Amino acid sequence: MRHILTLNAGSSSMKFGLYQAPEARDDEPRLVARGLVDGIGTGPWLKAKDAGGAVVADHALDDEANHADALEAALLCLSVDAGAVAAVGHRVAHGAPAFPRPVVLDTRTMAVLAGYTAFAPSHQPHNLKAVMAARDAFPRAVQVGCFDTSFHQGKAFIQDAYALPRELYDQGIRRYGHHGLSYDYVAGALRKLAPHLAGGKVVIAHLGNGASMCALSEGRSVESTMGFSALDGLPMGTRCGQLDPGIVLYLMLVKGLDVVEVETLLYKESGLKGLSGLTNDMRDLEAAGTPQAEEAIAYFAAMIRREAAAMASTLGGIDAIVFCGGIGENSRQLRQRVIEPMGWLGVTLDGEANRAGATRISAPDSKVAVYVIPTDEEIVIARACVEFIPQRAMAEAI
Amino acid sequence: MRHILTLNAGSSSMKFGLYQAPEARDDEPRLVARGLVDGIGTGPWLKAKDAGGAVVADHALDDEANHADALEAALLCLSVDAGAVAAVGHRVAHGAPAFPRPVVLDTRTMAVLAGYTAFAPSHQPHNLKAVMAARDAFPRAVQVGCFDTSFHQGKAFIQDAYALPRELYDQGIRRYGHHGLSYDYVAGALRKLAPHLAGGKVVIAHLGNGASMCALSEGRSVESTMGFSALDGLPMGTRCGQLDPGIVLYLMLVKGLDVVEVETLLYKESGLKGLSGLTNDMRDLEAAGTPQAEEAIAYFAAMIRREAAAMASTLGGIDAIVFCGGIGENSRQLRQRVIEPMGWLGVTLDGEANRAGATRISAPDSKVAVYVIPTDEEIVIARACVEFIPQRAMAEAI
Repeated sequence: MRHILTLNAGSSSMKFGLYQAPEARDDEPRLVARGLVDGIGTGPWLKAKDAGGAVVADHALDDEANHADALEAALLCLSVDAGAVAAVGHRVAHGAPAFPRPVVLDTRTMAVLAGYTAFAPSHQPHNLKAVMAARDAFPRAVQVGCFDTSFHQGKAFIQDAYALPRELYDQGIRRYGHHGLSYDYVAGALRKLAPHLAGGKVVIAHLGNGASMCALSEGRSVESTMGFSALDGLPMGTRCGQLDPGIVLYLMLVKGLDVVEVETLLYKESGLKGLSGLTNDMRDLEAAGTPQAEEAIAYFAAMIRREAAAMASTLGGIDAIVFCGGIGENSRQLRQRVIEPMGWLGVTLDGEANRAGATRISAPDSKVAVYVIPTDEEIVIARACVEFIPQRAMAEAI
Repeated sequence: MRHILTLNAGSSSMKFGLYQAPEARDDEPRLVARGLVDGIGTGPWLKAKDAGGAVVADHALDDEANHADALEAALLCLSVDAGAVAAVGHRVAHGAPAFPRPVVLDTRTMAVLAGYTAFAPSHQPHNLKAVMAARDAFPRAVQVGCFDTSFHQGKAFIQDAYALPRELYDQGIRRYGHHGLSYDYVAGALRKLAPHLAGGKVVIAHLGNGASMCALSEGRSVESTMGFSALDGLPMGTRCGQLDPGIVLYLMLVKGLDVVEVETLLYKESGLKGLSGLTNDMRDLEAAGTPQAEEAIAYFAAMIRREAAAMASTLGGIDAIVFCGGIGENSRQLRQRVIEPMGWLGVTLDGEANRAGATRISAPDSKVAVYVIPTDEEIVIARACVEFIPQRAMAEAI
């Protein structure tokens, strides 16, 4: 039996998934188990479930455990032999402009990706560290990089550029976009769920602690709220979203902050946390009920709505809105606050379907369909790995 | 006869208008003459016309002429005696949060306004210098400040705040908005032109070398694309508009630019000039016909359209769009490029009316009305002055 392992490493966490390689290239990898180590650096904890949902691990790791230790613990709980893993697929934040599709991670491609670290300083280094750890743990497996930027490549200049001198565009200051693996999954799921929308004008809102929106025309990304860095677009858990750049200049020239202090402010202290003065966690904000928490939620909802309309402008209309990501999938209140004021655009919520957690939450007569589709970045990575597994290994899988 | 003089000073220019004070407070000041000195610092030139449009001055000033000299030359060509001026009204970029309406400029109010210089560093100092020059020239006249921020005051928190820590909002980092005198004029003119729209949902696009848009509900500003500084919102002649703040951090941390270099880049080298690699002048861009010039125009049009839709989201619909400002009033091509793709929103252009320079340029069956209303910031300033002219002076005017 040959396996595919997927890894999605953050600064203090590592998500993993174990899949059985399919018998034929066109078939879907089959989930064996998936899990998460979080709290790396503070109090690492491992949690994993098998495909049926049974818990296979739920315990603390050694306080000193790093990403490599987390990987080792994950393998132990998955009871998988390193030799049985044919491919390790990695989520890598930034692969543009070089990689419009998944690629084998070798010395050459890793050098290119290391060069993109400045484009995604808070994500890329952790992603690449996980690749190094996986190379050591699985010396015979092919390492595959899957990029959050790939789904957005090929956008028109107007949706790809900032209004800056053109040489900066040529030097790589572009609207790369992120959450591409999630959009890839959701676009595919929507195609199955509502084939008539496959050729349509769709806005997907990936709302988690990081959040962005993507406008799709005929299934392809034509615009993304997230741009050059992870700061652009929607306000997020602790990030500011799009901002008057004059504020950055003011904070430095008048308030005397240095660039690192501004970076910390915009990445760590802003967004829902800054507006509420409380927390970046939507569940806690909804429970808090303070006027500031209410305003933070209302602000987030208003910006999502605003961007949905702006994306409809780019698309020349809108046929469907899809929610995904931790907040998009779980906060019925947020979905309601986003959708209810959108009647002017022909969007009508089915309140009961929304409360019940249905897949389609728009009213039957709504001109714009609204869906909730739980995203699955891991399966997108696992699918990408299939084509890189050597033929011999595929044969063994049969 | 008592007069009102209006002054609108930029870094290298000074617009002026001379009005006859009305007989009663509710009446409109009557234009006597208006003009402009531009090229201050390089090659100053004075041009003025009387109310009938006859040229009363059109000549160079001394190369060394500063704002005070420009004022003196203006008075000379207007043939107005300093003693006949009862009030001098000044356009001042920034008067918020202290001044939600026009105010007499005395030592106390000038001190407050000087404190706002950091909010509008490229406009406020010139405005205040003009006040000092006018005080010297008209020691007996009342000096009145009219603020571009006033029209936008009173917006809801969500439209007034950035997604930053709340204490920054309390410290004044807010979406003040600008071009308020222009919006004030256009909103009033629209009320006369189309009284049925007075209570409606209106988006005004003030498109000049500086550009912004304002969403009005029942005649009041509820949202502005221009925010804290003059950099926010739409791309402009040489300014970038809203930007991923991560780009500012990248330019400093990775590209090694210092904060003043970034400021120059974003204020002077970006926008239409940066995108086209040619010029900030829309007339020259339209004439150039290079692919880059075309992309710059298309980019500008797309962003205006995008913001119009986003503002419709805030308003919960849209009844009318109004163009004003140098580009908005004069570029039929730009208006066409903005409006034609907006059919999905119920907007239909009347191409012939647009080409002919009509006031209403939407088709009769367009669900959203589209107007072109030449703005007049000077008359808004002159009107504001009327209530500050001492009763005695008003009586003399009769």
